[in-house]
Amino acid sequence: MKTDYTPYMKLAIRLGKKAEGMTSPNPLVGAVIIDQQGKIIGKGFHKMAGQPHAEVMALRDAGKVPAGSTMIVTLEPCNHFGRTPPCTLALKQSGIKRVVIANKDPNPGVKGGGAAYLRKAGIEVIDSVCRQEAARLNEAYFKQVKTSLPFISVKLAMSLDGRIAAHDGSSKWITSEYSRRIAHKLRNTVDAVVVGAGTIKKDNPELTVRHVRVRNRPLYRVIFDTHLSTPLHAKVVTNQSTLYKTIILTASNNSQRARTFEHRGAEVIRIRTSGGMLSLQDALNFLGKRFMHILVEGGAGLVGSFVKARQVDKFHIFIAPKIIGADGIYPFQGVFLKSMNNVLELKDVQLSTHGGDCLFQGYPRW
Amino acid sequence: MKTDYTPYMKLAIRLGKKAEGMTSPNPLVGAVIIDQQGKIIGKGFHKMAGQPHAEVMALRDAGKVPAGSTMIVTLEPCNHFGRTPPCTLALKQSGIKRVVIANKDPNPGVKGGGAAYLRKAGIEVIDSVCRQEAARLNEAYFKQVKTSLPFISVKLAMSLDGRIAAHDGSSKWITSEYSRRIAHKLRNTVDAVVVGAGTIKKDNPELTVRHVRVRNRPLYRVIFDTHLSTPLHAKVVTNQSTLYKTIILTASNNSQRARTFEHRGAEVIRIRTSGGMLSLQDALNFLGKRFMHILVEGGAGLVGSFVKARQVDKFHIFIAPKIIGADGIYPFQGVFLKSMNNVLELKDVQLSTHGGDCLFQGYPRW
Repeated sequence: MKTDYTPYMKLAIRLGKKAEGMTSPNPLVGAVIIDQQGKIIGKGFHKMAGQPHAEVMALRDAGKVPAGSTMIVTLEPCNHFGRTPPCTLALKQSGIKRVVIANKDPNPGVKGGGAAYLRKAGIEVIDSVCRQEAARLNEAYFKQVKTSLPFISVKLAMSLDGRIAAHDGSSKWITSEYSRRIAHKLRNTVDAVVVGAGTIKKDNPELTVRHVRVRNRPLYRVIFDTHLSTPLHAKVVTNQSTLYKTIILTASNNSQRARTFEHRGAEVIRIRTSGGMLSLQDALNFLGKRFMHILVEGGAGLVGSFVKARQVDKFHIFIAPKIIGADGIYPFQGVFLKSMNNVLELKDVQLSTHGGDCLFQGYPRW
Repeated sequence: MKTDYTPYMKLAIRLGKKAEGMTSPNPLVGAVIIDQQGKIIGKGFHKMAGQPHAEVMALRDAGKVPAGSTMIVTLEPCNHFGRTPPCTLALKQSGIKRVVIANKDPNPGVKGGGAAYLRKAGIEVIDSVCRQEAARLNEAYFKQVKTSLPFISVKLAMSLDGRIAAHDGSSKWITSEYSRRIAHKLRNTVDAVVVGAGTIKKDNPELTVRHVRVRNRPLYRVIFDTHLSTPLHAKVVTNQSTLYKTIILTASNNSQRARTFEHRGAEVIRIRTSGGMLSLQDALNFLGKRFMHILVEGGAGLVGSFVKARQVDKFHIFIAPKIIGADGIYPFQGVFLKSMNNVLELKDVQLSTHGGDCLFQGYPRW
């Protein structure tokens, strides 16, 4: 009888997910080892970059591996010396006779090499078990590795009538305390949050992670600031630390002002303009070199430009049971779709409720 | 030990609710009879106007009522001869020794009289058990009886970005099939749906109840049509029947056109104008004489005028995971609230999901 590895792979996915937001630039990986009878004898996951990979953690957990054991792992084992030795070697030495994989690793340094090495070493390799589910786990990693662009999430807190602020700019608070906590959790899973300079000037946000577990690596705050108009005393400039860093993308040639920001610890990166605004493509090319996953949080102009350019991978939209009115701020500035035929639909939508608000999470069907 | 009547009352409320939308102009009422040991020996609910009341249905269900039995009923028993004899008389004759009530009946013809009659007849009366929950059951009845105005629900099908149609007026379909079925169910619970003439001209809707149980009484389609511009061949004019009737509220003096509508079976009612539009107060005074519960379904101008006048008792807002764009139609036309301090919040919000959409149902906190 053929063994169904699905339940083990689902467990491995759950294990991998435990480190959500902690492993960048590495992927999330979970691994399970079973003996010939199907009994689980080892479990592990990758905790953070520089720490052992999931396969090694599972092998350590198992201790001595009985002959004929199988490892179920969400991602193809690595075959190269990085910050840790290759997992393929550890597997070969362990006596594992079969490796079950969900996703091939698209990383050019690994691609196919891990599975090929294992097969040559006489280990059976089965792939594509729970492929789609595991791919969601590492959607940011896969996009960045394949395209050199960051995975782009957009988060918005809106009223029932599609407003992100009232006419006077006030937006405290549209959503419930519960939603705001979820929003901080989301921030904790990304490498950088992205906002427009207008939002900095209007709201002077901290853009830190509060109310949830502290990060193990810096959160970058990236400001799209064509004219370098971010105030020198903005919180994102003054509250920098080892955990919170700031990057200003600008087209301004005011090098004196740029130096002032740099003296205060921020990076200032020059980006070309396109139609009077920062070139989104150039900005994303830069961000893709540095970050796996960015979270665009506003304002309406910036969010609108990402949507117009079809540069959104995932939406996280909180809707609160409030009506802000016709004079409130609409979030997708400049997005004109004309007819129901052109409407932007979300697919694979997950709905959840948080203190009276509803959170829609889904992927745009461009 | 004092008996806790709450579970019985909750059952009585569930029984009453079975006839939701069927009893108008009567309230929803459920009743349970228990013996001295607390065993349920009879259950009943009011099915429709002209049919026996819940108390009588429960007494019939119980057959002979043992001495010392208690009736738990959601509304104070009636004490007058209407289309059926008074329930108080039936209770007195039945041998029931105690009546437990959730709500007093605010109907001037009943008010307090039922409970007082029972007490004089030597029957113990306990009131206000599950008062709030039972009041929700008959929120429309209570409002209409107390104020002579209809209970006003507003239903909207919107995109994530607060649009009820695209720029070209198209709106088929914003929400899922599941949501649309729920919307028809909602229509089935009211006495009249209310729309603006613009909606009739633009969409030519049928405004009938489809996909769900057939009604036991007419559904009125009320059109706010200042200038009597509804097309003579609009579906709501041509599809009239014993189940579907049409009323046009207008300020027009074009009596010839009015007569044409009347010949086709519609009622044409003249309403004064106020600021160039139909006087909402006069319209509601008229509607309150005829209807217990009306459902405003659009368009944006009419919904906006109800919100501006604070004449909404309950919102039913479906949000679909779609982005229609900045040029789409915003539903609360003319509603300018300026600041978060003035935002219209919904309270007692119920969230439910229907095929990827989220339905917010709640009461405005004016």
